[in-house]
Amino acid sequence: MPKSPSPYDHHLDKTPANHQPLTPLQFLERAAWTYPERTSVIHGARRMTWAETHMRCHKLADALAKRGIGKGDTVAVLASNTPEMMELHFGAPMTGAIINTINTRLDAAILGFILDHGEADAVFVDREFADVMSEALKIAKVDPFVILIDDPEYTGAGDRIGETDYEAFIATGDESFPYTPPEDEWDAISLNYTSGTTGDPKGVVYHHRGAYLNAISNNMCWDMTAHPVYLWTLPMFHCNGWCFPWGLAAAAGTSVCLRHVRDAAIFESMKEHAVTHFCGAPVVLNTIVNADESLKVGLAKGIKAMTAGAAPPAAVIASMENMGIEVTHVDCLTESYGPSGVVAPQDDW
Amino acid sequence: MPKSPSPYDHHLDKTPANHQPLTPLQFLERAAWTYPERTSVIHGARRMTWAETHMRCHKLADALAKRGIGKGDTVAVLASNTPEMMELHFGAPMTGAIINTINTRLDAAILGFILDHGEADAVFVDREFADVMSEALKIAKVDPFVILIDDPEYTGAGDRIGETDYEAFIATGDESFPYTPPEDEWDAISLNYTSGTTGDPKGVVYHHRGAYLNAISNNMCWDMTAHPVYLWTLPMFHCNGWCFPWGLAAAAGTSVCLRHVRDAAIFESMKEHAVTHFCGAPVVLNTIVNADESLKVGLAKGIKAMTAGAAPPAAVIASMENMGIEVTHVDCLTESYGPSGVVAPQDDW
Repeated sequence: MPKSPSPYDHHLDKTPANHQPLTPLQFLERAAWTYPERTSVIHGARRMTWAETHMRCHKLADALAKRGIGKGDTVAVLASNTPEMMELHFGAPMTGAIINTINTRLDAAILGFILDHGEADAVFVDREFADVMSEALKIAKVDPFVILIDDPEYTGAGDRIGETDYEAFIATGDESFPYTPPEDEWDAISLNYTSGTTGDPKGVVYHHRGAYLNAISNNMCWDMTAHPVYLWTLPMFHCNGWCFPWGLAAAAGTSVCLRHVRDAAIFESMKEHAVTHFCGAPVVLNTIVNADESLKVGLAKGIKAMTAGAAPPAAVIASMENMGIEVTHVDCLTESYGPSGVVAPQDDW
Repeated sequence: MPKSPSPYDHHLDKTPANHQPLTPLQFLERAAWTYPERTSVIHGARRMTWAETHMRCHKLADALAKRGIGKGDTVAVLASNTPEMMELHFGAPMTGAIINTINTRLDAAILGFILDHGEADAVFVDREFADVMSEALKIAKVDPFVILIDDPEYTGAGDRIGETDYEAFIATGDESFPYTPPEDEWDAISLNYTSGTTGDPKGVVYHHRGAYLNAISNNMCWDMTAHPVYLWTLPMFHCNGWCFPWGLAAAAGTSVCLRHVRDAAIFESMKEHAVTHFCGAPVVLNTIVNADESLKVGLAKGIKAMTAGAAPPAAVIASMENMGIEVTHVDCLTESYGPSGVVAPQDDW
């Protein structure tokens, strides 16, 4: 039988410039368009809707762009899990820049190395980490501009550094900043450094396409349906919170922020906000299992936990299940946008 | 502030040849690898697992390849919703060919037009439609080879046409045929003709990337979690069943086949197999709503229906909801892989 070329290939537009790029930034647009009044984020006394988060992200992008940030630039962030941290995951890449979230447990020397290696053009720093960042900026050769995140929920030590604070900064931006997908879905969206246990930290670059695909893959593999209430027990600086800042926008869910992962705060947040999902290293599961029994009273059944790293001990899983928490175990690498493999439950378990 | 080019772009491999293409063919590999023993398809007395479906699809691909089918070729199918129809959605594109499913309600003249316009190289035909296909093949200028689908569930009229039947054909193939993604995710996977109400039918080409994305978008927008039991009240010839042959593999679900969309068969299947989801035109909803009350006794609550086209009348939706069926309304175009927009439920409804 003679082979003929397909008569249809020429009907498919294979011109990359005409393709709609895959980017998690689009999830924010959809969430705000489809569910403007649903709660996007809860942090202490603060509540925001997806319409408000959308507005704030666009103001942030405009403020960054006015300050010269754009494609090829790096926006470094040293912060706790706060609404600002979540907004930076959208506002910074919307300018074409890369977001580089940094581990808050690092010392000034390593922070300085990362700022230089990542060629930071801007730094957002939570007041809790202002002192170590001040030291790091003295060590670093780069000279980024600095914006303070002064979270009302944080009342501890730390100087007010930087040229202005986050709220004043985004007030300089206009919410009309247009939704701007990347020119190419393979363009970088973020930069994450490994922990540096075997030498200098190594930078891992995520692209828009990968972040989009990993975010929806997480949601699907975890059977996460619309409007989850997600507790931030996993640091967003950790592989961009395993892409969940983006995945929660895809699911139009609610982020419940948590500055410090302590047992009482975890249980109070879970009960008060009817949390449905959370992620964490095995140590977070241990904290929950070993919490005082009085804290566990009244916890809803069916909360879903995702954990990575070494498989948790059977006793920990059993204790979690006795509390009514369903544990999903994933493999996780900095190099793979967070979760890269999932232990898929089998019928005969 | 001076702009510097990103130091990271060169770490991103933008060479298309090195990219993992997005293709729904991969869903079959994962379903069979992860859930080999779960039921993939139920049709009358037949039951298959994902391991068996995987094996049969690979044998089909090998049989097609041995018969000369490959990239640029067209595999036309005129069939009911049967396991063979589902398998063709994987086995044909795995060779690089395009699957062209054809509306079973068309007459010989239009079928002949489609076979010619689509440049059919192979035709799979269900015995129910053998007579009209014989006529069409006389009209058509192309000379494809013909394989009969002789479904044991079909006992009506129709000659055995073609050089062999489906089971004998796939027996010529080897299950070791390798998983073969497309060279380029923008390569065509299928060809669907519009109904021809305004002239000759027009061919719409779907690519692997679009089929992948629409399949998972359906699953996400419908909150379809793992292992749905899906009743085939929507023809698979209709925009490739709105991409659900692929989406059900992504969810490792079970396809419950149905040759004829009649009320008694629908209710019996729903009850016997604990169906969770089904799709259909508004007429399918009407059939269900207007069924004899005795058929509705014992139907489980919470079955989810997806319907397209004009919004169903409020009375139909109300009747469905009284039966405990949740209706999701989508926009649907041949040009958009089936569902392209969804009516997203709002809190204040």
